[in-house]
Amino acid sequence: MLTFYYAPGTCARAVHIALEDAGAVYERRRLDFAKAEQRSPEYLKINPKGRVPALVTERGALSETPALLVYIAQTHPDAKLAPFDDAFAFAQMQGFAAYLASTVHVAHAHRPRGIRWADEPSSLEDMKRKTPANMRDCFGLIQRELFVGPWAMGAAYSVIDPYLFTVAGWLGSHGVDIEEFPAIAEHSRRMSARDSVRRALAAEAA
Amino acid sequence: MLTFYYAPGTCARAVHIALEDAGAVYERRRLDFAKAEQRSPEYLKINPKGRVPALVTERGALSETPALLVYIAQTHPDAKLAPFDDAFAFAQMQGFAAYLASTVHVAHAHRPRGIRWADEPSSLEDMKRKTPANMRDCFGLIQRELFVGPWAMGAAYSVIDPYLFTVAGWLGSHGVDIEEFPAIAEHSRRMSARDSVRRALAAEAA
Repeated sequence: MLTFYYAPGTCARAVHIALEDAGAVYERRRLDFAKAEQRSPEYLKINPKGRVPALVTERGALSETPALLVYIAQTHPDAKLAPFDDAFAFAQMQGFAAYLASTVHVAHAHRPRGIRWADEPSSLEDMKRKTPANMRDCFGLIQRELFVGPWAMGAAYSVIDPYLFTVAGWLGSHGVDIEEFPAIAEHSRRMSARDSVRRALAAEAA
Repeated sequence: MLTFYYAPGTCARAVHIALEDAGAVYERRRLDFAKAEQRSPEYLKINPKGRVPALVTERGALSETPALLVYIAQTHPDAKLAPFDDAFAFAQMQGFAAYLASTVHVAHAHRPRGIRWADEPSSLEDMKRKTPANMRDCFGLIQRELFVGPWAMGAAYSVIDPYLFTVAGWLGSHGVDIEEFPAIAEHSRRMSARDSVRRALAAEAA
């Protein structure tokens, strides 16, 4: 039995969808960021970083989206969510995940959470002005260089698909129209039609 | 045969050491950042992100440090550099790598490369003022929560060790004394004594 800690609209959505794709048996625990529940003493025992997602397993807690996605794939092999037997394909998939986590999510975070990296209001405004261009650069590169189609890694659906879907869902918050990236927009529509995605989004909205 | 693209002092050092740990057969190609070789048309064909490290394999190019570290471990199983057969331990290792890539490296980058996220000189200075505190927060958490000892993940050396060693090597550039984190300082000394590390550092300095 897994316990999944999340907050709506965050990158935890990728893990949420992957759990549904895998047919995992899990319990959801929603954190209210407005009440700073991610920094409560109880939650910091689960994830000392004070962030979501976290996944509590029988052997302890795990965190970081790229790690959780691969963990779900590895522990639910029948769902075939990652190419473990092909080191090159697996490294391509991991490289895509690392780019989403370290570059795209970080570019995004400078709008809502610039305070992590600077203190002055003028700096935070400067960062916010720059996020649309950075998000465009990232999604231009994704569409041109990383995305294969019809799924992120090609013919086979993988845990990168819910991750890409989740991060692409933030474009609008920067005033960037996802339709500027037709292949990504089409991917998001394809994702939205999946039962796993519908279940995860319905649970987030409930 | 692998071709490894790097620049001295960057996070490519982690991959460089891992290649030596694995006993990999590879050729080094150094990029001169002062000449912006990472953005040359030739290199952008290898890594369109214009960053290091990159690793060219028989099947094509790979990038992103966490992905390359796992690729090297997976393709050199005799070196036992990652716990592939234990999904939980592998996820812990991947979570450590993701934290180094997405949080610690990013915290560091706001000093030398704040221009990625803001434009005004005052914003860049603001970011630089904040990096020592952020690096201290990161290494406090690493020492308290993630680092097991004697190696990063415990008794078994893994590809996280060269990654931690590389990122810890940047503390001084923020005016943070690594000795503030005794377990991390001791780990860096233990790493420095390894032949693989000596070979990689000698090649970087040559």
